Amino acid sequence: MITVLCGGVGGVKLVDGLAAVLADPTALTVIVNTGDDWRHLGLLISPDVDTVMYTLAGVISRDRGWGLESETWTALEMMGRYGLPTWFQLGDRDLATHVTRTFLMAQGRRLTEITRILAAALGVVPRILPMSDDPVSTIVHTPVGRLPFQEYFVKRRAEDPVTAIEFDGLERARPSAEVMEAIEASALIVVAPSNPLVSIRPILALPGVEAALADSGALRVAVTPIIGGAAVKGPTVEMLRGTGIAADPLAVAALYEKFLDVFMLDVRDRAPAGPLVAATSPPRRIAVECADTLMSDQAGRRRLAREILAVAARRGVEIGRRPV
Amino acid sequence: MITVLCGGVGGVKLVDGLAAVLADPTALTVIVNTGDDWRHLGLLISPDVDTVMYTLAGVISRDRGWGLESETWTALEMMGRYGLPTWFQLGDRDLATHVTRTFLMAQGRRLTEITRILAAALGVVPRILPMSDDPVSTIVHTPVGRLPFQEYFVKRRAEDPVTAIEFDGLERARPSAEVMEAIEASALIVVAPSNPLVSIRPILALPGVEAALADSGALRVAVTPIIGGAAVKGPTVEMLRGTGIAADPLAVAALYEKFLDVFMLDVRDRAPAGPLVAATSPPRRIAVECADTLMSDQAGRRRLAREILAVAARRGVEIGRRPV
Repeated sequence: MITVLCGGVGGVKLVDGLAAVLADPTALTVIVNTGDDWRHLGLLISPDVDTVMYTLAGVISRDRGWGLESETWTALEMMGRYGLPTWFQLGDRDLATHVTRTFLMAQGRRLTEITRILAAALGVVPRILPMSDDPVSTIVHTPVGRLPFQEYFVKRRAEDPVTAIEFDGLERARPSAEVMEAIEASALIVVAPSNPLVSIRPILALPGVEAALADSGALRVAVTPIIGGAAVKGPTVEMLRGTGIAADPLAVAALYEKFLDVFMLDVRDRAPAGPLVAATSPPRRIAVECADTLMSDQAGRRRLAREILAVAARRGVEIGRRPV
Repeated sequence: MITVLCGGVGGVKLVDGLAAVLADPTALTVIVNTGDDWRHLGLLISPDVDTVMYTLAGVISRDRGWGLESETWTALEMMGRYGLPTWFQLGDRDLATHVTRTFLMAQGRRLTEITRILAAALGVVPRILPMSDDPVSTIVHTPVGRLPFQEYFVKRRAEDPVTAIEFDGLERARPSAEVMEAIEASALIVVAPSNPLVSIRPILALPGVEAALADSGALRVAVTPIIGGAAVKGPTVEMLRGTGIAADPLAVAALYEKFLDVFMLDVRDRAPAGPLVAATSPPRRIAVECADTLMSDQAGRRRLAREILAVAARRGVEIGRRPV
């Protein structure tokens, strides 16, 4: 079994690539950040879960990277006419997802179950696991004040400098049983090239998750979210700098040092002379592998996925691949 | 000021006609049944209020008589794909109405305020007042059991014999202050040709409403919902018979006898020799006027509206009409 830790638009490309190259895509589990979930207009919205789900269902908008392809915006226009805010763009079919999720939640279902129902209806084969069934909200500190994540990210286009990030509810949240079981049952665990601060950190910060990753017998690989000093998309670099972390791939590797075995650096970046040595006790060695991690098209997604499986195979973790 | 008591599809035709012929449509207030409101898929749906609102906004589907013209059904299809029931047809723009209403309700707004906001956004000029801000549900008793009204009416197409009708919550519900004020301020009060049992009775059964109508100095006119022994649309006749009431226009007049001054019978029905005498103490006289009450097109709606204003004028209640 392979488990990927993932956020939304960035990391899902690798998940998509893995789902495409695995001989058995049912062996793939994706643990998805829910720290940027929020209630908007009374609806429970789970942006990263939806992005992963729509991508794996093949219905994601390729242009936007979020929401559905061939989407219509009829309901949103009407809501705007009624005076509701429309900056968070809810397409008609996407709205159906949120209405359904909100309804099932009100009936007492867990987000994990709801996600299973929605994903199955869309024909998704890999298993999508929200990191938690408990609500967690991401709040970013900026010069204009503390902002809910979607307001910072979507409404204000991630243009405010971020000086700190907090996760409201995280101290009370627990990872789901399914998440802990997936980590335990995995032979390969991959941290996707998602934003380490707002997509991966909430997952790791859930009680028990980082320890389970550290104790796991799986090979643990992370893919750099920074290529040539920049993020492919999104405010990763600005957020790292703003919160006092070097905007450098190896600084990201250090964020995962408590459990990481292999860090995949992009070929465009300068590789260190040898393995990284984590500041853990005892010190752990993190191997560095170089690959073309820029997934600019479907072929790029599959290429990086195959590269990761090759890295695993070289370390004795053989996972069946589809013939090329 | 003119106030109309109204349900949905049937009675709204007269409201539409009145709005069209009044010199000052702002003088028109519509008190709308909310006894068939319900929560569906987590959304608060107010079918009669919406039908009145969409009609007065000129956006109602003329073909269906409910919902919006040129409606799309994208979200509903998606909800069906997710396994939600789709028999209650929610169009995309209609869904926006329900999402907005549900959101504003969760923010603590009253249904009366919400209706004002929605109707204003749609450019509705007459005032639409839900009968109450408190929830009331209509339950019909049938051979297959007690059914929520929309399940009986929409899902099962009103095909089950109805033996009794109950209104859940009615004993705790109060008419809104706006409803009571409208009744008090009116010179003419019209009971629309809506289903007397499920559209008008819930309004009358709210504490204080029937007494306020009886005490009112307004001229109180009701229009027959039965023409030639049949309802124009809907199960009015079957419901009357099933609950032990004659399916006869004058039996409907008797349901309003505590306050009615004039009953408008259709020209297709046999008029009584003189006024009706209500079994009230002291006995009240209810005049019968004959008119073509079949509103088969827009002209028919306006014709009946003018007829009612003429009936009122003959009794000294002069209300300004637009020139024909």
